[in-house]
Amino acid sequence: MQKDNQFVKEIADMKTDFPQWYTDVILKTELVDYGPVKGTMVIRPYGYEIWEHIQEELNRRFKATGHKNAYFPMFIPLSYLMKEAEHVEGFAPEVALVTHVGNTELEEKLVVRPTSETIICDMYAKWVQSYRDLPMLINQWANVVRWEKTTRPFLRTSEFLWQEGHTLHTTEEEARGEALKMLEVYREFMQNVLAMDVLTGIKTDKEKFAGAVETYSMEAMMLDGKSLQSGTTHYLGKNFASAFEIKYLDRDGQLKNPYQTSWGVSTRLIGALIMAHGDQRGLKLPPRVAPVQVVIIPIASHKEGVVEKSYEVADTLKKAGLRVEVDNRDQSAGWKFNEWEMKGAPLRLEIGPRDIENGVAMYSRRDTHEKGSIPLGDVATAVPALLDEIHENMYEQSKKFLHGNVDVCKNMDEFRTALDNQHFVKTMWCGCRECEDAIKAETAASARVMPFDQTPVGDKCVYCGKPATKVVYFAKSY
Amino acid sequence: MQKDNQFVKEIADMKTDFPQWYTDVILKTELVDYGPVKGTMVIRPYGYEIWEHIQEELNRRFKATGHKNAYFPMFIPLSYLMKEAEHVEGFAPEVALVTHVGNTELEEKLVVRPTSETIICDMYAKWVQSYRDLPMLINQWANVVRWEKTTRPFLRTSEFLWQEGHTLHTTEEEARGEALKMLEVYREFMQNVLAMDVLTGIKTDKEKFAGAVETYSMEAMMLDGKSLQSGTTHYLGKNFASAFEIKYLDRDGQLKNPYQTSWGVSTRLIGALIMAHGDQRGLKLPPRVAPVQVVIIPIASHKEGVVEKSYEVADTLKKAGLRVEVDNRDQSAGWKFNEWEMKGAPLRLEIGPRDIENGVAMYSRRDTHEKGSIPLGDVATAVPALLDEIHENMYEQSKKFLHGNVDVCKNMDEFRTALDNQHFVKTMWCGCRECEDAIKAETAASARVMPFDQTPVGDKCVYCGKPATKVVYFAKSY
Repeated sequence: MQKDNQFVKEIADMKTDFPQWYTDVILKTELVDYGPVKGTMVIRPYGYEIWEHIQEELNRRFKATGHKNAYFPMFIPLSYLMKEAEHVEGFAPEVALVTHVGNTELEEKLVVRPTSETIICDMYAKWVQSYRDLPMLINQWANVVRWEKTTRPFLRTSEFLWQEGHTLHTTEEEARGEALKMLEVYREFMQNVLAMDVLTGIKTDKEKFAGAVETYSMEAMMLDGKSLQSGTTHYLGKNFASAFEIKYLDRDGQLKNPYQTSWGVSTRLIGALIMAHGDQRGLKLPPRVAPVQVVIIPIASHKEGVVEKSYEVADTLKKAGLRVEVDNRDQSAGWKFNEWEMKGAPLRLEIGPRDIENGVAMYSRRDTHEKGSIPLGDVATAVPALLDEIHENMYEQSKKFLHGNVDVCKNMDEFRTALDNQHFVKTMWCGCRECEDAIKAETAASARVMPFDQTPVGDKCVYCGKPATKVVYFAKSY
Repeated sequence: MQKDNQFVKEIADMKTDFPQWYTDVILKTELVDYGPVKGTMVIRPYGYEIWEHIQEELNRRFKATGHKNAYFPMFIPLSYLMKEAEHVEGFAPEVALVTHVGNTELEEKLVVRPTSETIICDMYAKWVQSYRDLPMLINQWANVVRWEKTTRPFLRTSEFLWQEGHTLHTTEEEARGEALKMLEVYREFMQNVLAMDVLTGIKTDKEKFAGAVETYSMEAMMLDGKSLQSGTTHYLGKNFASAFEIKYLDRDGQLKNPYQTSWGVSTRLIGALIMAHGDQRGLKLPPRVAPVQVVIIPIASHKEGVVEKSYEVADTLKKAGLRVEVDNRDQSAGWKFNEWEMKGAPLRLEIGPRDIENGVAMYSRRDTHEKGSIPLGDVATAVPALLDEIHENMYEQSKKFLHGNVDVCKNMDEFRTALDNQHFVKTMWCGCRECEDAIKAETAASARVMPFDQTPVGDKCVYCGKPATKVVYFAKSY
């Protein structure tokens, strides 16, 4: 009977129309709305609170690894963008330009930051004098603008929110180590906060960041078998440092350019967790970022003591550090069950007159739909334990899904079949750009990442058949 | 001897050149730097962490009063700004305009938000259908852009960070109540977090927000006797709601425009606390927002156990929830004392071999320069208590300074003398715009606020001598 409720009906079938399922879910759960300017989004309170928890969790990790937050201006002189050749080529076509203030034309056009390497390097050139000023370990939380032709809320929008770390180091080893360390911080965050498993590794030259020597990436598998680049860290070498003349006096009395990194994740992560965990009923939020971790629904709420007991249990859970809401609206219990399943609350508690008599609350898990009862005296310990269990189960599901949907392919027939089955392809590649381009042109799949574990799965390039040099994951992607 | 140290020498004399004192302090303590585009600022880590603590404290208060955070796009179609007549007149000359993306001209020019009433109203018009959707209580943390001719870091910059609350209500009474409630939230925050006393009241029509029916403000007195508008809340009536056609179906079946408020504080608060608390040695940071609340300086740190004990005490204090730094750099203790006084750390602890023998740490308060000793076993309780004492003392100083520097003036001679003495003027006004304009033209002082307590201090207008209707505070201002 519950399957026929209005919400399920209103959400498109995820098996046959995944993009529409996504759009239905994000709009109906009020995570987001479209802004008036094409390609922009409004992050509504229910979506923004997920972002706030992502920020808290990442900030703790960034600070624990020695980084401090700062804020750099959003407007960058156009000439700055021009200083690093690959960088300008990558970003110039999609930058928004401020040309006027009121009716007055500006002397130099200003770029609304698409990323902040250039302006941050300009400041670092002022701040860094000596090896004592290094490493420089700064992160920024900010809005950035990249004008995209095809947009979708959270996944690709003209303006989005992100964090960007920018660091300077005295040695290449330390800088590469930083880029790898932050990739691991991201991966561990995906596992322990968003309950998602990811593939990590190195981007091909074609896919790397405009201006980087090397880009490390984590790629997540969405439920439709597409890959979502969820976070990247870049080893920039001295590319920007020399273009912006950042120099420090080393212990040996020589002036040197430092080695640099940058790394970022964005509001795209909200899209990632929706498309990795959701189901036909709607959102399935990972407990550690869910705005409402536990929803309490009073049953037969007109009966004496039911509402009071519901709020009493809510208070107990809040004191235990949980995010709890009592849904005491004038609607049927069934309506509320459906609404909160759609909104993805990880755990539902029901409290009715008989439960109070029995000294228990009934629970229902969003991840497994498993139901049971918890003695009211135990909620402060049993509910957090249940939420941890839900988290672990969601992570295990994600891991199983990812690794169960990768096909090792020896040739292009297998490659195409894998894609048709909505799987990732793990294969061998000769390393040349021509094969990579041809694969993308013919299959729409791109090289997602070259895994750190390069144990060969063959010896010939899947495309040209020449000797292979690299293990690569290919997939269609967002 | 300490008075002759390098830092004191490098900071301009605050008595004779307050603006230069301010500039010296903010740059030398690395709170901020100038951005490459005129009028922009870079908020460096030491300054940004103050902002982070301001955000945490305000977020807690906003959420406790029922508000949720959201994020709206930064780009607003130019036509939106035009919909509310006073609003466009106030903001159009100073808005930054995006006209191009890459080489392509946009069909409609986009305004970089100077404030978000217009775009938020556009969304509220979509979201609000029924009285059940009200009140709408949303806050946004964001960057905004207002192109100003004269700029100074934190106080007035082309781009700054702020929060803006935007609420809708079914009745005028409730909306006015919201604007007054949020003013009180701000005032209480100033007292209990920034340790500052402020004057609160209503702005004159001349000084109110472009588009408001009424603006409430809090004004702080800087050490040079100028006023700094530190936060405002606006009762907007139906001005924007009718321009943007926000309508809800009321219980009586009628479609109605809701009543609206908006309210904001910005990174200007960092400027406020610097100019309200500082002294000739530099910053004097209120403990509840200081990035380093306690600095521990090992004395004779080459002696066995000194550094270890310093870190041990730091750990104890961190576990007590404090922000602590051990300054173990290769510099003299005297150099460190001066540096941390300049940087405004509220409390310094010194730990040397003799202190360890005696089982104590020596302390020195930044606010009073009072020194003493704390048994090492007591630091976890004694140090938080001392920080509270420092906070209370700083607030009492601020209160004394504000109320000790207001002159009640009966005529323009007294008015001018008060300004010459760097005091605020409390006086009577007839309520007409001509007198207000003339006073500003002749004295450079503006009407800061009409206090809620309108107990008369005379019966004639200080300027024209006609019957007075209002008690007003006038002052020069930032």
